[in-house]
Amino acid sequence: MSSGNLPKVVIIGGGFGGLNAAQKLAKLPVDVTVIDRKNHHTFQPLLYQVATAGLSPGEIAAPIRGVLKENNRMHVLMGEVVSFDLERKSLKLRDGSGISYDYLILAAGTTHSYFGHDEWEPLAPGLKEVEDATEIRRRILLAYELGERRAAVTGKAEPVHFVIVGGGPTGVELAGAIAEIARHTIAKDFDWIDPRQSRILLIEGGPRVLPAYPEDLSRSAERQLRNLGVDVMDNARVTSIEPGLVRVGEQAFPSTVTLWAAGVAASPLGRALGVPTDRTGRVQVNGDLSVPGHPEVFVVGDLATLLDKKTGKQLPGLAPVAIQEGRHVAKVIAQDLRKAPREEFRYLDKGTLATIGRAAAVADLGEKLHFSGFPAWFLWLFVHLMYLVGFRNRLLVFIEWAWAYLTYERSARLITGSTQLPGWTQQQNLHESNEPSVEQEHENETHAAD
Amino acid sequence: MSSGNLPKVVIIGGGFGGLNAAQKLAKLPVDVTVIDRKNHHTFQPLLYQVATAGLSPGEIAAPIRGVLKENNRMHVLMGEVVSFDLERKSLKLRDGSGISYDYLILAAGTTHSYFGHDEWEPLAPGLKEVEDATEIRRRILLAYELGERRAAVTGKAEPVHFVIVGGGPTGVELAGAIAEIARHTIAKDFDWIDPRQSRILLIEGGPRVLPAYPEDLSRSAERQLRNLGVDVMDNARVTSIEPGLVRVGEQAFPSTVTLWAAGVAASPLGRALGVPTDRTGRVQVNGDLSVPGHPEVFVVGDLATLLDKKTGKQLPGLAPVAIQEGRHVAKVIAQDLRKAPREEFRYLDKGTLATIGRAAAVADLGEKLHFSGFPAWFLWLFVHLMYLVGFRNRLLVFIEWAWAYLTYERSARLITGSTQLPGWTQQQNLHESNEPSVEQEHENETHAAD
Repeated sequence: MSSGNLPKVVIIGGGFGGLNAAQKLAKLPVDVTVIDRKNHHTFQPLLYQVATAGLSPGEIAAPIRGVLKENNRMHVLMGEVVSFDLERKSLKLRDGSGISYDYLILAAGTTHSYFGHDEWEPLAPGLKEVEDATEIRRRILLAYELGERRAAVTGKAEPVHFVIVGGGPTGVELAGAIAEIARHTIAKDFDWIDPRQSRILLIEGGPRVLPAYPEDLSRSAERQLRNLGVDVMDNARVTSIEPGLVRVGEQAFPSTVTLWAAGVAASPLGRALGVPTDRTGRVQVNGDLSVPGHPEVFVVGDLATLLDKKTGKQLPGLAPVAIQEGRHVAKVIAQDLRKAPREEFRYLDKGTLATIGRAAAVADLGEKLHFSGFPAWFLWLFVHLMYLVGFRNRLLVFIEWAWAYLTYERSARLITGSTQLPGWTQQQNLHESNEPSVEQEHENETHAAD
Repeated sequence: MSSGNLPKVVIIGGGFGGLNAAQKLAKLPVDVTVIDRKNHHTFQPLLYQVATAGLSPGEIAAPIRGVLKENNRMHVLMGEVVSFDLERKSLKLRDGSGISYDYLILAAGTTHSYFGHDEWEPLAPGLKEVEDATEIRRRILLAYELGERRAAVTGKAEPVHFVIVGGGPTGVELAGAIAEIARHTIAKDFDWIDPRQSRILLIEGGPRVLPAYPEDLSRSAERQLRNLGVDVMDNARVTSIEPGLVRVGEQAFPSTVTLWAAGVAASPLGRALGVPTDRTGRVQVNGDLSVPGHPEVFVVGDLATLLDKKTGKQLPGLAPVAIQEGRHVAKVIAQDLRKAPREEFRYLDKGTLATIGRAAAVADLGEKLHFSGFPAWFLWLFVHLMYLVGFRNRLLVFIEWAWAYLTYERSARLITGSTQLPGWTQQQNLHESNEPSVEQEHENETHAAD
C-alpha cells in the first residue's frame, strides 16, 4: 500500500465489466481497488455447464486476486457494498467500514427476479453464481436417484419431469443440456427407471425462444430443441409454481425439478446511487458511461442502460457489451488524466451465439450471416474457450469438452448437500392414489393443498 | 431388473472396500446392489487437496453409477441404511423401505470422532467427504480475505493462525499444504497483510507425528514440516476448542481456522449389526472377513478389525487394506458358489506413503526400505494417479499437478457459501483492546466469555 497520491479508482464487481476495466487501468498511474462479494470471477456463459454436471466450478471460476496480481497498485477486497455517498465520494461496506474514491466504477450486474413472487425462489432456483449451479446440479441428479430408489422399492417407474421457465439463452442451454443428460449421459445407468422417458418442458412467455435473436434463428433453435426431445411452449405465462407442479393458467404441469431462467433484475446498488434508473433498476448512463451529474462515477455492464449509437436500440445484457464498456471507462479515465476530451462509447457488435446442445447452436453474425447447427456450435466452443479467463481453465475445459464429445459422459456428476427435493412427496400425490408412501413418512415436506 | 433367481449381494458403502468388492462380483452370476448415502465414490487420499484448493471435487470423485455400469446385474441405490435384521436377511433404509439380501457386505467406513466433544465440530471441521473439503477450503481462503479487509480498514495487519489437531497422515497433509499456500501460492496476492506471516500449528497427542510409521520416518516428517514453516507440537492434548482459540492445558493458542484430524470413529452401522465390536465400534471379523455366526455377512475396510496374520498387529485403516478386503469377499462368495472351502484373508503390505508438501513425503516400503523427500514424493504422486478411479480423473489431476508444480498456483481457489468465520470477532478480542470494531457490529457471533 504505497501508491501515494495517485487517483483512487474503486471498482465494484469482478464480472466481465469490472475485471476488464481493472486490467486496462493496471497500465495507468492510478490506484485500483476491486470489491466483490465473492473471491472469484465467474465465467457466467459456461455456468449452465456446471449446473448440468459438464464442468466443475473450479474450471470456470478464477480468483479475482489471482487474475489481477499484475502490480502493486491493484487491490482486491472481498466485501459487500451497501451504500454510497456520491457527494463525499465514499461508499460503505456491510461491515460498516467506509471506503473513499476519486473514480467509482459500478459493475454489479443483475440478480434473479421472480416478478414479485419471491416465494418461487426455493422451488425454482435461478442461475447466477457458482452456488446456484451446484444447487441446480444437485436437483437434476437427485431427481433420478430418488426416482430409482422409489421404483426399486415400489416397482413403479415414473418419468422425471423438468420444467424450465424462460426461453432466453440460459433457459435454452439448460433445457438442451438436460435433454442430453437424460437421452445419452445417464440413459443406461439406471435399472428401474428409464431416463430417456424424462419430460423436459421449456416455457417461454413471448412468442418465441431467444427473443433477442432474429426470428429465423429462434425458429431454428426451437427445431433443434425439439430434435433433442424438449417440449417448447411459447406465449405461456407461468401463473404459479408449487412443490412438484407448475401452472400456466388452467393447465398444471407436473415438475420434479423446476428451474428459473425468466427474470433478471438490476442489482439494488443501481438504485442506491440515487441517480435516474429505468423501470428494472438499471442506471441510465451518459454517452461516456458516467452517470448524470457525476463525471467521476461510471456504470458498466448489465447494470447500465444505454442506447446503441448505431441501431438506436438498447444495448443487450451480454458479456461483450460489459467487456467493451469496462475497457471504455479505463480509456475515459486515461483521457481525464492527460486532460483530453472524453470519448463516447460505441459498441462493436461482433455477433451473438447461443448453444442448445451437442452440435446444436445458433449464430447471428450480422443481418446476412445467420447460421445454426454444427458450424454455429463449433464457433460457440471456440469463442468460449478463447474468452475463458486463465490458460489453465482453457486447457481443462478443452479436455473436458473433448472427453464429453467422445464419450457422452459428464465429468462432475456430484450430488452434494441435502438429499431432499422440494415437491418430492407432492409430485407423488399428483400421480398416485392417496395411500401413504414410504417417503411420506420421512421426507420433511408439507403437503400440497390439494 | 431381470436377474431372476441369482443370489442377491447387497453392498453398503461405495468407498474402496465396497467398490472393489462390486467390481469383482460383476464377473460372477450374482445380482449386486450397492447402497451409498452419496451418489459418488470419493477418492479420500486426495480429499485434502480439495480442502486446500489444489483440486476440484469433480476431479477426485466419480459417480458410483458411472463406475459400476458394467452389466445389468449391477444396481446402485442412493440411500441411507439405518438398521439390519440379520435373522431375516434384510435391512431398512431411512425412507422406511426394506431390502433383502443373500449376502451382505458392510463397507461403511468411519466418521469423525470428537472424543465426546461434539460441540467442537462446528469450530473445527474434519475431512471425510467432499462437503467437508469445500467447507475447509472456504475457511482457509476466507481467513485471508477477512484479514485483508480488516487490515485495509484499520491499517493493522495480523497474521492468520491455523491450528490442526491430529498428526496422522491427514493432519500432516493439511498442515503441509496450508504452509505451501501461505508461503507460495498466495504469498504476494495481498497488499495489507503478508500471508507468509501465517502461523501453522500441528498438535499431536502422542510422542510423534505419523504414529503408524517407523520412528525414523516420523522424525523425517517433522523435519520436513518444520522446513515448510509448520510448528509441530507433540505430546499435546487439546483440552478445549473455542471460537478463535485452541487450549492445550494452560496454554491458549489463537486460531483463525481450526481443523480436526484427530479422531476417527467407526460408522454406527457396525454396532447396528448386533455382533461383537471393539471399543471404537469396529466389527471383529473372522479370518474370511465374515462376522461370527453369520457366514453370509461380511465387513470390510475401516469398519472391520482383524489381526494381520503376518505381523500379529491390527490391520491399519488404509485404502490398500480396504481394496484387498473387498476383493477377498468377492473371492469368498465365488468359492461359496462353487462349493469350495473359503480362503482366509491375508493382507499383502506393499508399503505406505504419506505426503507433506512439494517434494516432501515419507515412504515405508518394508523394514529396510525407508526413504523421504523428493523420491518419496514422486512415488506418492505416481501411486495416487494410478489408483485414482477413472481415466478422465487421472488425466485432469495429472495436468493440475503439473501446472501447480510449475506455477505454485492452486486451481480451485473458490470461496462458496457463507462469508462468516467462527471466532472472527473473538480472535480480535484476544489481540486488541476492547474497543468495538466494525466487524463486531455486524458479524453474527456471540462474544467469548473472556
